[in-house]
Amino acid sequence: MKERALILVQRLQAEISAALEAVDGEGTFIDDYWTRVDKSGDHGGGGLTKVMRNGRIFESAGVNVSEVHGLLPPSMSQKLIGEERDAKFYATGVSLVFHPHSPMIPTTHANFRYLEVESYSWFGGGADLTPYYLWEEDAVHFHRTLKNACDAFDPEYYPNFKKRCDEYFYLPHRGEARGVGGIFFDYLGKDDPENLPEIYSFVEQAGEAFLDSYLPIVHLRSDEPWDENQKKFQLMRRGRYVEFNLLYDRGTTFGLKTNGRTESILMSLPPNVSWEYNYQPPAGSREEALIQTLSQHREWV
Amino acid sequence: MKERALILVQRLQAEISAALEAVDGEGTFIDDYWTRVDKSGDHGGGGLTKVMRNGRIFESAGVNVSEVHGLLPPSMSQKLIGEERDAKFYATGVSLVFHPHSPMIPTTHANFRYLEVESYSWFGGGADLTPYYLWEEDAVHFHRTLKNACDAFDPEYYPNFKKRCDEYFYLPHRGEARGVGGIFFDYLGKDDPENLPEIYSFVEQAGEAFLDSYLPIVHLRSDEPWDENQKKFQLMRRGRYVEFNLLYDRGTTFGLKTNGRTESILMSLPPNVSWEYNYQPPAGSREEALIQTLSQHREWV
Repeated sequence: MKERALILVQRLQAEISAALEAVDGEGTFIDDYWTRVDKSGDHGGGGLTKVMRNGRIFESAGVNVSEVHGLLPPSMSQKLIGEERDAKFYATGVSLVFHPHSPMIPTTHANFRYLEVESYSWFGGGADLTPYYLWEEDAVHFHRTLKNACDAFDPEYYPNFKKRCDEYFYLPHRGEARGVGGIFFDYLGKDDPENLPEIYSFVEQAGEAFLDSYLPIVHLRSDEPWDENQKKFQLMRRGRYVEFNLLYDRGTTFGLKTNGRTESILMSLPPNVSWEYNYQPPAGSREEALIQTLSQHREWV
Repeated sequence: MKERALILVQRLQAEISAALEAVDGEGTFIDDYWTRVDKSGDHGGGGLTKVMRNGRIFESAGVNVSEVHGLLPPSMSQKLIGEERDAKFYATGVSLVFHPHSPMIPTTHANFRYLEVESYSWFGGGADLTPYYLWEEDAVHFHRTLKNACDAFDPEYYPNFKKRCDEYFYLPHRGEARGVGGIFFDYLGKDDPENLPEIYSFVEQAGEAFLDSYLPIVHLRSDEPWDENQKKFQLMRRGRYVEFNLLYDRGTTFGLKTNGRTESILMSLPPNVSWEYNYQPPAGSREEALIQTLSQHREWV
């Protein structure tokens, strides 16, 4: 399964980055191959980080594949497999974040990964959408596309994964969701190893569905006009994105604690960001409407 | 001691913010009084956040006083007093961060605080400097001024507090210090309650010394010319500042976990920030020199 998972994440990286270049029309991805070996020889790995900067549509976009192995510290092993000891792990995954110039086009993030810790194996992943100016039909389209991919495997998947996404991408100190959600799943197959091939197929389908969930929104919103105040609002909302990733995101924490490659982990951070003390959106504005939407539970399909 | 500590931090806030307005010449602090009471009645508090935005010299500056009390969760109580249970706490402090427009003027942060957890009381605090373009004599001046304040009380203070500052303001995932350090102390008086009045005097002197350590650098560097590339470098270095504060800073973590006031806690974040994938400074440049300085241990006085 290791080999199949690695090939899957590499294929998704190639397909998604090629599609993004085609949509952008100007920006191209720079390939940055990297390897990582620590002195003890316990940890190793490498990957390919593809980064686009200042394209026509995307201010920054990154699609990273990594394959790492080593020993987990006992505290992490306790959390993952319930045994507190140095534990061998292997992880491979693709993760991506796209930050458009236009505040009318949402940011998106997706991640599909395969892990082995000692004798356990599982898949995790998901995709979520972070709009700055919201058209509700865009959130509906994003969710519906992912729901269709889920429903083909298990009718319980979408409701469960949607809920977990809402729970995961939440900033308690703001009382806000990071965005309008999507799907999030983890430990899939961990207690059900004979089902891993079927789960592999689901992850493959979810990965394939990601572009269909996002690109139509880019096409729809790329001609929407925007002004400097709307750009300022986007930069402030990107601040929330940074807060989530550095305060709460498990992928970031896992990466930094396992001596991962900093630049590839923090590639998710937006290129330009602002913080403004105690910003309050004008009453009745689209900015206020967004914040209200992110402050309450919502079913999109 | 509670009353004395509160008055001290309020006085420091007033003096420091008045001096900063005088230096800036254009910017003024807006006062934002706030209170915080949770539904259970277990937690309460309030404070005054003073914020300057877009002054002549300072892009943003904040000086916050807070006074909060409540119950600590057992996990935090374990860390602080070695007893795992709900523990009553009281905390008051002043904290400040100044972000100048010019990349030639360093950012600075200082914080002086008094805590009571059950029957324990202590002071903590410190001050540190984060330059973007470094004149070594500025770092020397900053350290020497703080050292003089320390030496008047205990010759062991400065070497200990300088070392703890270096250890604390460190980004392991970057292999870099946040800046050129300063002093950092905590739990002062916790195991030595009869010495608290003397420690109060030290904190008062350290607080008074802060302006003398920083303002001469502002005067010296405010006429240095700078260009857009140097501004870009500052924005990227501010990204490191954000990474430290959200990934490692105990004040931020403590504040957010004790249901503190988000806007006042995150006031420390810079107004405008950038991330650029895998930035490398030109060989032999001042940017490279800064990063080398931050990557190794250094005694300044």
